[in-house]
Amino acid sequence: MIEHLAIVGVGLLGGSIAQAARAAGLARHIVGIGRDEARMAPALADGTLDRVTTDLVAGVRDADFVILAAPVITIEHMLATVWPALGPDTLVTDVGSTKANIVAAATRLHATAPRLFVGSHPMAGSNLAGYAAARRDLLRDATVVVTTTETTVPRALKAVTEFWESLGARVVVLDPLTHDRAVAAVSHLPHLVAYALVDAVARFEPAALDIAARGFKDTTRIAASDPQMWQEVFLANRAALAVTLAEFRQALVELERLILEDRDVELREALARIRVSREQLR
Amino acid sequence: MIEHLAIVGVGLLGGSIAQAARAAGLARHIVGIGRDEARMAPALADGTLDRVTTDLVAGVRDADFVILAAPVITIEHMLATVWPALGPDTLVTDVGSTKANIVAAATRLHATAPRLFVGSHPMAGSNLAGYAAARRDLLRDATVVVTTTETTVPRALKAVTEFWESLGARVVVLDPLTHDRAVAAVSHLPHLVAYALVDAVARFEPAALDIAARGFKDTTRIAASDPQMWQEVFLANRAALAVTLAEFRQALVELERLILEDRDVELREALARIRVSREQLR
Repeated sequence: MIEHLAIVGVGLLGGSIAQAARAAGLARHIVGIGRDEARMAPALADGTLDRVTTDLVAGVRDADFVILAAPVITIEHMLATVWPALGPDTLVTDVGSTKANIVAAATRLHATAPRLFVGSHPMAGSNLAGYAAARRDLLRDATVVVTTTETTVPRALKAVTEFWESLGARVVVLDPLTHDRAVAAVSHLPHLVAYALVDAVARFEPAALDIAARGFKDTTRIAASDPQMWQEVFLANRAALAVTLAEFRQALVELERLILEDRDVELREALARIRVSREQLR
Repeated sequence: MIEHLAIVGVGLLGGSIAQAARAAGLARHIVGIGRDEARMAPALADGTLDRVTTDLVAGVRDADFVILAAPVITIEHMLATVWPALGPDTLVTDVGSTKANIVAAATRLHATAPRLFVGSHPMAGSNLAGYAAARRDLLRDATVVVTTTETTVPRALKAVTEFWESLGARVVVLDPLTHDRAVAAVSHLPHLVAYALVDAVARFEPAALDIAARGFKDTTRIAASDPQMWQEVFLANRAALAVTLAEFRQALVELERLILEDRDVELREALARIRVSREQLR
């Protein structure tokens, strides 16, 4: 049982985590920390939070478990402020969609003041944002990547893993760079491609949007995601994104060549091979 | 009321149309025409079809309404066989995902023997194929594009439009080239991109597929589509596809440039602008 759970950022993800922790009885007190008290009021009113504050340092000082649920670049910058307020036994994790930048910042701080930090990335979200979109089952059956480095303290890794599992998530442990490379491929690249698809159609043939069927809507749903969040994600992970984007362009060029050269048999074989990969997704 | 409805190809789409026509009481007799009687047996057994045959000419000869529900290139080639068997008052339409090639073939045949042909494209489908995946409500609330040319007979256009509307679909009338350009953008390009995405990830970081979340699954669902069907669609519409693909590449390059040059404000504005386009989808 967590005595004081502090959640920094009570939006879609932070709010969903708070609701799930409350529902599962994981914490006695839950405090929400944000820049605007009024925006956290609904989470107080519905009993999800016991207290809210705009004071980051005061908010985390008494906590025994801290979750940083802000956008990725904000998390990276916030660590230096949070760190001195953490006790040596306080567990701290985050929900950032990129890990190398955040974990590197934490590791630098750890070198001067060892703390129980473990980076996390809950792979659950929505094109909706804000506490109004939070759901207590958002993490259920989701994958949460938890990252380890040479300085990771085993009991911190265990506690953070158990926390996510208590919310119904499946935990996968990766090092930060492998994580960033993997999410560049299966998350950031598809988002970038979806944005480009919508943009291309809107410029090329806006009337075509009127006949768009379910396939287009599914493929581009993520292009309705929060611009601020995705701007930060794309920038924070741009090195890995550039590599996976090059791989994508190569795959696209190869398919296009088969089409333009009318190579029907090879094209069908390529599509069939790719379908097998797609069907292996859980 | 249609006396004899003939459906050539009793797969996902042909089967769904037959089921919906049967449920709505649109036709007294429904005959299924295909290459393999055994594969049509389930549609006989469940009462959707009254009769099946592998003889294309005999199957359409007595029909007053014929629907060609084969893959696009097959439809194009089948028209020359079907045409002489059609009576002057027989309505004939198709379900091909590309229209310029099919309508051009029909228009050439029409010049020597006028018939009541109107090209259709029901924008409903699934990554599943075959009669087992057919559903009587597949066309409900779907968009069906119906094409017109200089030789379209108004009463044929009216009858075909009413047929689709009777199945619960919304009909949009376009000329064949505008149709092909529009579906290249909102259907064929997204399919090609989804195939390339899955292929890139499978080659670049196969382990990443293990942590793929809902966003990746939605974006690439259509990459599990039928390879034979999509090989034919891509080849039949390759001119329009190449144009829209160039537009997509340009949109992608522009977003990538903002990311690599760390232009955060412009990137966020671009993502916000694209989100507005996406949210305009019905």
